[in-house]
Amino acid sequence: MNYRIITYVIGWVLNLEAICMTLPAVTGLIYGEKTWTSFLITGLISALAGTLLVVRRPEKPHFFMKEGCVSVALSWIALSLIGSLPFMISGTIPHFVDALFETVSGFTTTGASIMASVEDAPRCILMWRSFTHWIGGMGVLVLLLSIIKMSGGSQMNLMKAESPGPSVSRLAPTVRSTAKILYTIYLLMTVLETVILLLCGMPVFDALTTAFGTAGTGGFGIKNDSMGGYSVTIQIVVTVFMILFGINFNVYFLLLSKKWKQALKNEEVRWYLAIILGAVLLIGWNIRGVYGSMGKAIQQAAFQVASIITTTGFATVDFNIWPEVSRTILVLLMFVGACAGSTGGGIKVSRFIILLKAMKKEIKQYLHPRQIRKIRVDGRVVEHEVVRNVNVFMVVYIMIFATSVFILAFDNLDLITNFTAVAATFNNIGPGLELVGPTANFNVFSDVGKYVLIFDMLAGRLEIFPLLLVFFPDTWRKF
Amino acid sequence: MNYRIITYVIGWVLNLEAICMTLPAVTGLIYGEKTWTSFLITGLISALAGTLLVVRRPEKPHFFMKEGCVSVALSWIALSLIGSLPFMISGTIPHFVDALFETVSGFTTTGASIMASVEDAPRCILMWRSFTHWIGGMGVLVLLLSIIKMSGGSQMNLMKAESPGPSVSRLAPTVRSTAKILYTIYLLMTVLETVILLLCGMPVFDALTTAFGTAGTGGFGIKNDSMGGYSVTIQIVVTVFMILFGINFNVYFLLLSKKWKQALKNEEVRWYLAIILGAVLLIGWNIRGVYGSMGKAIQQAAFQVASIITTTGFATVDFNIWPEVSRTILVLLMFVGACAGSTGGGIKVSRFIILLKAMKKEIKQYLHPRQIRKIRVDGRVVEHEVVRNVNVFMVVYIMIFATSVFILAFDNLDLITNFTAVAATFNNIGPGLELVGPTANFNVFSDVGKYVLIFDMLAGRLEIFPLLLVFFPDTWRKF
Repeated sequence: MNYRIITYVIGWVLNLEAICMTLPAVTGLIYGEKTWTSFLITGLISALAGTLLVVRRPEKPHFFMKEGCVSVALSWIALSLIGSLPFMISGTIPHFVDALFETVSGFTTTGASIMASVEDAPRCILMWRSFTHWIGGMGVLVLLLSIIKMSGGSQMNLMKAESPGPSVSRLAPTVRSTAKILYTIYLLMTVLETVILLLCGMPVFDALTTAFGTAGTGGFGIKNDSMGGYSVTIQIVVTVFMILFGINFNVYFLLLSKKWKQALKNEEVRWYLAIILGAVLLIGWNIRGVYGSMGKAIQQAAFQVASIITTTGFATVDFNIWPEVSRTILVLLMFVGACAGSTGGGIKVSRFIILLKAMKKEIKQYLHPRQIRKIRVDGRVVEHEVVRNVNVFMVVYIMIFATSVFILAFDNLDLITNFTAVAATFNNIGPGLELVGPTANFNVFSDVGKYVLIFDMLAGRLEIFPLLLVFFPDTWRKF
Repeated sequence: MNYRIITYVIGWVLNLEAICMTLPAVTGLIYGEKTWTSFLITGLISALAGTLLVVRRPEKPHFFMKEGCVSVALSWIALSLIGSLPFMISGTIPHFVDALFETVSGFTTTGASIMASVEDAPRCILMWRSFTHWIGGMGVLVLLLSIIKMSGGSQMNLMKAESPGPSVSRLAPTVRSTAKILYTIYLLMTVLETVILLLCGMPVFDALTTAFGTAGTGGFGIKNDSMGGYSVTIQIVVTVFMILFGINFNVYFLLLSKKWKQALKNEEVRWYLAIILGAVLLIGWNIRGVYGSMGKAIQQAAFQVASIITTTGFATVDFNIWPEVSRTILVLLMFVGACAGSTGGGIKVSRFIILLKAMKKEIKQYLHPRQIRKIRVDGRVVEHEVVRNVNVFMVVYIMIFATSVFILAFDNLDLITNFTAVAATFNNIGPGLELVGPTANFNVFSDVGKYVLIFDMLAGRLEIFPLLLVFFPDTWRKF
């Protein structure tokens, strides 16, 4: 294990985090809030720690998969620990576990909160919460790779470990330019959403935080009723952008490169949009009685479906009180998740496509045992390694899920609360049902329960294996 | 597709079922119940249909995997359709879906009932219900193979399709002798349990039906409170036998062959017993307050744990009112299931062992990408095909599970009822939680809901693929 390269990467992540503190600090200064100093202090601590770690360049800049995974996992842990300081220093969330929960929930773009009333919090704190979504959405290491020129080694392993989905494609000849392209698209789309929201009459602060939350598919709101108080136009704009940020960014790159045909033929995006359409129609029909008109029902269904499948977690209504069919559809969508290579979480549509094709292949194997078949997505053969990894991913996913629900049971809450709390954090969504429904918060759990959910959020965002590796003794053994 | 061999097999299954009608018919005669005639009528219908189908021997007695799977699936459907006649003819369960539900629940050894009060039913009907468990437990085609000398072809494919677990081992040189060995062990253990129950003071009728229910890991009771009214001694005897019938029968064969070392080293059985021990201690500790003493709590925990993990489904108490930790453990055990090659259902311990090892292998792959590893169970390499099949099994399992919960949601019951109803039927257990808890019954669902659960029970017993093949258009296509 190349320890020096790992600490070097973590160092740069912390330096980057120090720079990120500028935004909330400036927000605090603009609104004349004294709490801005907590960002100054955190920024200084982060910069100091970061500088100490990067001052000596590693002799061997080589990266294997192992180092890539461990760097990413530890970077995210360091990022979250430092990121929780402003909450504690400002006194907004004095308890350590709670502050960590809120920060991890931010960076992992979960959006599950332990705060009972966000409207009472200083604006700079709310800005930081929403900004963590934006940083975590596309990934802090992808950002790092796009800014800093790192020499040597297969940096692709860093990107592979952080990017969501079963496989990562290189858009440009170098990792750095790939990262740059992704971040440019991400930034432009965020700016576009902010501008449209401003045009719809949203105040600047609200527009910025909402855009951060949508772009990262995070879901922290700045109002106690999430997005319920905004106009229907704003809700529709947010609906559209949530769906857009859940699409595989490779498709945007193809569109920019004018490869229309290839972009429109993307199987994952087609499935993703088909699932959204189906769910919206079914729920709309199911809740038409609740909202009087079919139009209103469809609009509300669309917002909630987009919010859940992209794992954003904004809410305009309390879907916990919807009829059982709609609740069940939303719970199922929690697991589907968005497209690979988007900012969304969950299991990802592409994994399900691969799984469904593997299933079909297996059934055909019973009919013609000697035939050899390959799984194809978008016309290309999916390598055996990817299929195996997806299969094992599902199994590990289930094991972690079951273990989490089991540990939460000790808090003696009901099974639906526990089940949907794990579903909502592990898939980086935010709200669940019952005691963790859209109008409730996660403070109902004990500290142990919160640590479990913190683990789930990180495991969900990093897609399990990088984080698991850190806890696997063999990783740290010398060979 | 060799259609003739398929109808030939179904014919023999129906002849066998006609013979099986003798037991409930005789029971009815002994107790002077007029309803015995419904078994006479059913027996005649079954024998007539069976004879017509077997009268002409198929020219080509060849069996491929495809024919094996389709024969098994269709045999089970035919078996259930004919088996439901006595319920309807006698008027005990007049409605067709309900009668089919009860019969499928019996043969698949689920034990989920739609009858509100079993104590009101004639004894011959109760005998038939319990006897279906015994027939379905070890498998009707395994029974057929052990009795009838079928010429030619790889009959192993029939056995593979019906036997539970990821792979089937041949205990003796021929399929017929393997089937004979399995049925002899099965029969002897059933007799042993019956004798012990009689010695404990149980009436003959109760002892026989209870032994059938335990042996097949079925769970139909003949009392409204299941096993709650019997003495503690009887409850302990049943606990022990439930655990014994959940063990891989290969181990008993090894014990009989005096291969002690090999038998005791079986990984699956060790895990199975360890899980039971862990669950009993945890639940016992968790419910000690409910039952006053730790001893009583352990005894109750042991009965319920054994009943759920072996997927029997007997109950001595209403575990629906237990604290959340215990309820959650029981729900998790519902999925674990018993050992492969036992009469129990569920996903099976051996599948989890393979999955856990595949998981560990995958993590190691991140550390040493070039190393080639094999998964070993009991010191033997698990073939790549088996691992892949287990992985795909899990995925199909989840898909069917989610689809079932989704369709049940239309009945507008609560999520826990729907979720545990599917878990209880798909894993062939019997009772779930809430509205389908141990003291309730499955009549709360609509007809559509019942058909879904009937499919789940059959899919669970036949481990999905054989049943799925029947619904797969390619199976019926000519090549």
